[in-house]
Amino acid sequence: MKQHINNLSIFGLGLIGGSFALAVKNKFPGIKIYGVDQNANHAQKALELNIIDEIKSADDKIVLASDLIILAIPVSAIYVILPELLSKISNKTVVIDTGSTKSSICESVTKHPNRTQFVAAHPIAGTEYSGPEAAFPKLFEGKKNIICEFELSSNLAKKYANWLFETAGMNNIFMDTENHDKHLAYVSHLSHISSFMLGLTVLNIEKDEKNILNLAGSGFASTVRLAKSSPDMWAPIFKQNKTHLNKALDEYILQLKVFRENLEAGNIDELKSLMLKANQIRKVLD
Amino acid sequence: MKQHINNLSIFGLGLIGGSFALAVKNKFPGIKIYGVDQNANHAQKALELNIIDEIKSADDKIVLASDLIILAIPVSAIYVILPELLSKISNKTVVIDTGSTKSSICESVTKHPNRTQFVAAHPIAGTEYSGPEAAFPKLFEGKKNIICEFELSSNLAKKYANWLFETAGMNNIFMDTENHDKHLAYVSHLSHISSFMLGLTVLNIEKDEKNILNLAGSGFASTVRLAKSSPDMWAPIFKQNKTHLNKALDEYILQLKVFRENLEAGNIDELKSLMLKANQIRKVLD
Repeated sequence: MKQHINNLSIFGLGLIGGSFALAVKNKFPGIKIYGVDQNANHAQKALELNIIDEIKSADDKIVLASDLIILAIPVSAIYVILPELLSKISNKTVVIDTGSTKSSICESVTKHPNRTQFVAAHPIAGTEYSGPEAAFPKLFEGKKNIICEFELSSNLAKKYANWLFETAGMNNIFMDTENHDKHLAYVSHLSHISSFMLGLTVLNIEKDEKNILNLAGSGFASTVRLAKSSPDMWAPIFKQNKTHLNKALDEYILQLKVFRENLEAGNIDELKSLMLKANQIRKVLD
Repeated sequence: MKQHINNLSIFGLGLIGGSFALAVKNKFPGIKIYGVDQNANHAQKALELNIIDEIKSADDKIVLASDLIILAIPVSAIYVILPELLSKISNKTVVIDTGSTKSSICESVTKHPNRTQFVAAHPIAGTEYSGPEAAFPKLFEGKKNIICEFELSSNLAKKYANWLFETAGMNNIFMDTENHDKHLAYVSHLSHISSFMLGLTVLNIEKDEKNILNLAGSGFASTVRLAKSSPDMWAPIFKQNKTHLNKALDEYILQLKVFRENLEAGNIDELKSLMLKANQIRKVLD
């Protein structure tokens, strides 16, 4: 694979931004990586861990003239920064975002004169950990990456995006923003909320944490794992995907109520039937 | 460790029963293991996999005169079989159950003249898979085992139970049945229902399974993993623990509704605050 770019700026040096930096460094040690983070400790840590080569501010001339800028910050910040950034960057700079919502972000630059310099992406990868220490070069390997409105990106922007995601080892899927946000509400955002609220329910009742520790098996740990995720990252995602997520939550709450009613009524055959249907998720997971 | 017993009968040759057989065989190859399963295919498979030495029927004299009988069948079956079994077995036979509920099972034999020959246990171990093929000898290693009403078991029964769970590599915890069922409703049974219903919600909306496959990340897989569990095993557990579970479900649904209301109202700070509280689950899991 060709190197294509000489330098790269990353906004947000957490799990996603840090892991892109490490994936690029792994394959192209010659590419200079600039790191931007409003959390000075994160920036310093990323430098110490050799995730980035230099700390820069968001409006540094070198950053604004980078070949490529990756936005790996909360979606609420992408939404605000992206239009400003497209107005300031050099005409050869490409910006790629990695946000978990796509409609609001794409709408924020639909009519921007430099829209073609932007690629709207959502790498489907992550762990429940955050910050530069959580980053690792193989995070994206073999994972899917969703690109929206690719037809609105310039050839140069497409080239850099294809290069970046290939470098990280990802496979691209193309979708419109509406479908992206709708499907992600179900297969990602809803499961985060179900996990957060399960954690909260159990913590509320089990005041004595020692008890949970003793009694919880690996099944509980698996179901509640996402409750460890970062509120600063997820609250803006939920807000931006409110419409689809409210519908998903309504349907989830409805299913739980149906289950509860059948449990109350002792309809064990109906409970089994609901669980058998849910078992079909095996086809998807295995 | 001493061998203590010469033979062992196991009712139910699935994940739990099969794994106990393999754990015992691993350390004490001289112990003869008899397998009882009303599913003839399971019994045959367990024999082929060398999980058991012989297939027997539930009322076989050799089974009823075993040193130890392990009940690893659905809790609805334990509840029915246990009192009958205690009436039929030799006075030197000890019965240990492994059910995920304890109140109903213990109540079924409270006044039984041979109550002392029984130990009520709940090994906190499992996977989302079932059947003899799912069994493996290390399933229980380092896991907790809950024993209820140990004071009602004879010294011989206590000795065999301690031996069995030590052989499997487990650490015992002692609880009363009421507390067992209450805590397990939260840290195990509720997370199974939340996972089953999440799977169902997503399958209902995502008619095209290919879409889920493409878009779902490891987070979704983790949260929905338990939806693969056996309905035949879990429906009776939910039924026997109905009272505690209804309460747990009510609290979970309430938390989800509170989240949804704050999402609807755009109270992002409140959403973050709820998630931050849920983050405390880290202390328990890490």
